[in-house]
Amino acid sequence: MTVVRRIMERLPYERIIYLGDTARVPYGTKSEETVIRYARGCASVLMKRSTKVLVVACNTASAYALDALRDELDIPVLGVIDPGAHAAVQRTVNRHVGVIGTVGTVESGAYQRIIRGLAPDIQVFAKPCPLFVPLAEEGWTDGQVPRMVAREYLQDFREYGLDTLVLGCTHYPLLACCIAETMGDGVALVDSAEAASAAVADLLTQQGMTARATARPRHEFLVSDSPTTFARIGARFLGRELGPVEWVDF
Amino acid sequence: MTVVRRIMERLPYERIIYLGDTARVPYGTKSEETVIRYARGCASVLMKRSTKVLVVACNTASAYALDALRDELDIPVLGVIDPGAHAAVQRTVNRHVGVIGTVGTVESGAYQRIIRGLAPDIQVFAKPCPLFVPLAEEGWTDGQVPRMVAREYLQDFREYGLDTLVLGCTHYPLLACCIAETMGDGVALVDSAEAASAAVADLLTQQGMTARATARPRHEFLVSDSPTTFARIGARFLGRELGPVEWVDF
Repeated sequence: MTVVRRIMERLPYERIIYLGDTARVPYGTKSEETVIRYARGCASVLMKRSTKVLVVACNTASAYALDALRDELDIPVLGVIDPGAHAAVQRTVNRHVGVIGTVGTVESGAYQRIIRGLAPDIQVFAKPCPLFVPLAEEGWTDGQVPRMVAREYLQDFREYGLDTLVLGCTHYPLLACCIAETMGDGVALVDSAEAASAAVADLLTQQGMTARATARPRHEFLVSDSPTTFARIGARFLGRELGPVEWVDF
Repeated sequence: MTVVRRIMERLPYERIIYLGDTARVPYGTKSEETVIRYARGCASVLMKRSTKVLVVACNTASAYALDALRDELDIPVLGVIDPGAHAAVQRTVNRHVGVIGTVGTVESGAYQRIIRGLAPDIQVFAKPCPLFVPLAEEGWTDGQVPRMVAREYLQDFREYGLDTLVLGCTHYPLLACCIAETMGDGVALVDSAEAASAAVADLLTQQGMTARATARPRHEFLVSDSPTTFARIGARFLGRELGPVEWVDF
């Protein structure tokens, strides 16, 4: 939803069909095989709805399933890791970049590989921060507990002399304040959601697929678990009410 | 796994076939419909393996799916809520009982209903503590963070004059120290895992199904996601190595 929010801000005339696999989340603690299987299921639902671009708006799914989806689908498929890695490379001056994400994202090595591919001189320090996801879901994004969790995870990161830290999980922007406070002023946070929305805009422009600026589009929100729970939590991520949410099975 | 541990301690000659639906957990944040669907899937796997008793070793699944499973299966089905509720009723002196669990367990009202059914004079105070599950999974069971989370969730509980608190989630025994410290000496913790193992022993005795005390049994561990990850986390819950873990699909 943090990605959806950025895309809506940047591309207000594009119609978004969002699918949240709420019956099976979180993906961040699950294996590559399982995440690929679920990502395929999600893609098959969205492909039935005349989608022009598929955005894999989850770092773990991008890390594990992007190649499989690109092989199998005949529309452009964008992940969030490539844009996040590019943004970090552009941003760093001292060539010390940190990446935080789920266990899956960090263990996949996707950020490390892409960043080193773009700029082999950059040192990448990566660390999973699993509790940030449930903290964001619980709405504990400010206060003593998230501050202490951020310190617990990131205190050793402060010794590496980073000037750039990638928020390599779409939940983490909700905890950006606590993370920024822990890392201190000298460290810029790169939001993979923000970077991904810019990549979507570039792709639409390049391929001449941008929607015409007419009426505001009617977005669709689909979930695999209870629509009511999602409507409540989703609004927190999106910063406004969602409208009707539909249940889908797959 | 906390329930498995208690059953193994109490009934060392019973062979346990454990299934962890690791590809879809946590259940505690999911809806009744989804939990029932997954519980049916789990039961169908276990029923293929000549099971004599099915223990639903999860409070959320017990709260939502026990009736459905009892209707559909022809073996005894035991949950963890009934035993936990009975133990709390036996334990309380001042008739003020607290229950903590997942959002699903607390919202289902199962503990509240069973306790009041057994003893209508008991006042029940129930509260979801969602972050206890990821804390236990992450292994943060002691130290500043779990202590502060326990205080955050339970500080208002200290004003209700409880003498008994039910750990209504099978993850919570791992955080028993922090929970006990927050609640103070006057509050007894009831472990639904411990109570459930006693209920299993009673049932086996009543029905003449107790295993003979011969060789130690070879237990089976099945999971729906990566066996290697589970072997690591499961050992933390069980307090010893698991042996081989098998992947199952359903």
